[in-house]
Amino acid sequence: MNLNDIYKPVEKDLKRVEHGLEEITDAEFPLLAQLLAYTLKTGGKRIRPVLTLLSGKFYVYQPGLLVPMAAAIELLHTATLVHDDIVDNSPVRRGKPTVSRAWGENSALLLGDYLFAKAGSLVAGTGNLRAIKLFSETLMTISAGELKQTGVLSDTAKLRDYYFAWIGAKTACLFSTSTESGAILSQAPEEAIQATRDYGHNLGMAFQIVDDVLDFVGEEDELGKPVGSDLREGTLTLPTILFVESYPDDELTKKVIGKRDAEGVSQAVERICNSKVIDDCLAMASEFCLKARQAAEKLPDNRARKSLIDLATYIVERRK
Amino acid sequence: MNLNDIYKPVEKDLKRVEHGLEEITDAEFPLLAQLLAYTLKTGGKRIRPVLTLLSGKFYVYQPGLLVPMAAAIELLHTATLVHDDIVDNSPVRRGKPTVSRAWGENSALLLGDYLFAKAGSLVAGTGNLRAIKLFSETLMTISAGELKQTGVLSDTAKLRDYYFAWIGAKTACLFSTSTESGAILSQAPEEAIQATRDYGHNLGMAFQIVDDVLDFVGEEDELGKPVGSDLREGTLTLPTILFVESYPDDELTKKVIGKRDAEGVSQAVERICNSKVIDDCLAMASEFCLKARQAAEKLPDNRARKSLIDLATYIVERRK
Repeated sequence: MNLNDIYKPVEKDLKRVEHGLEEITDAEFPLLAQLLAYTLKTGGKRIRPVLTLLSGKFYVYQPGLLVPMAAAIELLHTATLVHDDIVDNSPVRRGKPTVSRAWGENSALLLGDYLFAKAGSLVAGTGNLRAIKLFSETLMTISAGELKQTGVLSDTAKLRDYYFAWIGAKTACLFSTSTESGAILSQAPEEAIQATRDYGHNLGMAFQIVDDVLDFVGEEDELGKPVGSDLREGTLTLPTILFVESYPDDELTKKVIGKRDAEGVSQAVERICNSKVIDDCLAMASEFCLKARQAAEKLPDNRARKSLIDLATYIVERRK
Repeated sequence: MNLNDIYKPVEKDLKRVEHGLEEITDAEFPLLAQLLAYTLKTGGKRIRPVLTLLSGKFYVYQPGLLVPMAAAIELLHTATLVHDDIVDNSPVRRGKPTVSRAWGENSALLLGDYLFAKAGSLVAGTGNLRAIKLFSETLMTISAGELKQTGVLSDTAKLRDYYFAWIGAKTACLFSTSTESGAILSQAPEEAIQATRDYGHNLGMAFQIVDDVLDFVGEEDELGKPVGSDLREGTLTLPTILFVESYPDDELTKKVIGKRDAEGVSQAVERICNSKVIDDCLAMASEFCLKARQAAEKLPDNRARKSLIDLATYIVERRK
């Protein structure tokens, strides 16, 4: 199963989204143009805009509204990455230095703000008030979710709940906005809007869990960043959390939860990779994907629905 | 002339704006609630929301739309201050530690994002697409303007042009959005919308020049921050720029433009305060205020118009 086949039903309009993103990089002054080109021409998978386009394929398909909406979704996603890389002090993303590392945190902060605003302006251009409201609320959820996460967490019994709430806000929320906005803009009935929302939420949960697994077991070349980056940056994701739950008395658990040193983290990454928790995580991701497929099956049967269903399988099988 | 008299025509609805801002601080988790209360309960002058309310007083006054719009304007303003304080590494604002100093840059960054989103959500609630578009474009202008400013500027002949473009983007743009959105939401005809926009732009230019003058000649207690803060942080504002233009060969000019040390800056602040450039700056501010008054005079004659005109006088006479 490859992405090209899955993207087929919206191939042409995805090119229009790419073209729209390219036009944005033609900015009024060189620094802004350079920063926009650096962050938008990435060769990323563009899963979120594809979700918007596919979700718009079930009722009145309106590419004139869906293409700017899909571009706005990708801009919002990019903005949150740029700001996240400041918060996490990340050196590398997709094999390149992050904006904050290459141009400094101030430029990264202002670029993120500009991307938020540009995204908002594109959504406003759809003229659809429901989509506009959904979009603002998504940014509220994402930023509040990250802020909640900044609190230090000493109660290991609650780590898992925190993790699911956190990835719900930071990833699943934008996935469900991607699909829901596509449904809204194609005049879908309420039940179909609800089905696309459920699909997007569950797909997003699975996507983030797999991302967090790949951070441990992926290939450095394909990840575009060192293996175990999350834990090295002090971020506890599902593999670490399940490890801590499974082996509460392990010496490494104390090293992971308490004061971390480079050697302890490297040992922990290796132990986690070779433990059963990786399979446990992937089983959880598969459960979310099953729910996503079940939601998609409530939609009318067409090629776009097949793509949504296949995408849910692709998400857990992917290697980058 | 005092602000209470000027605010009189919209006194009741300004209280509703304050109430709306207070409701926002009732957030879903303690850290967010605390950060929102810290930044929104400031006893600030609330000039921007008042401008929205006053500008809505000329045609169909619709407080149900103007109150959330005015609250959104104040939220956007607050968001830009929170992010600016990160960019400028400012220790103090309005007599209190900045959010980035008290809670760290990460919390400040995410709080700013949340405030942007909340503001966008309130504007979306007005259901007015023109106001929504204007609002997104304002954030684009502000962030792009700040980003442009981050470039190092060695050509002193262009400092003044840069300054005016910069304050146009960072201050006058939000002032004109404050007034223009009020006019839009009250179904004003195009000429009246244009007049409120011109008024807001010119008032904003004057406001920022006076702010930058007060940074030199104001009282520390009233400013809520040390005198000469801008120059100490490396920001060249109009008083410094006019000083550099007037005394290009002065020893202090070299200290101000080149590598700065604390002693050189303190001397420069004193010299600038006692030079003619302070009066030159205030004369420029008065010119902008004159243009603002002329724009306001194109609006129907009522109490709100008198307030707009009086506000233009207040802006240059104020001491904090």
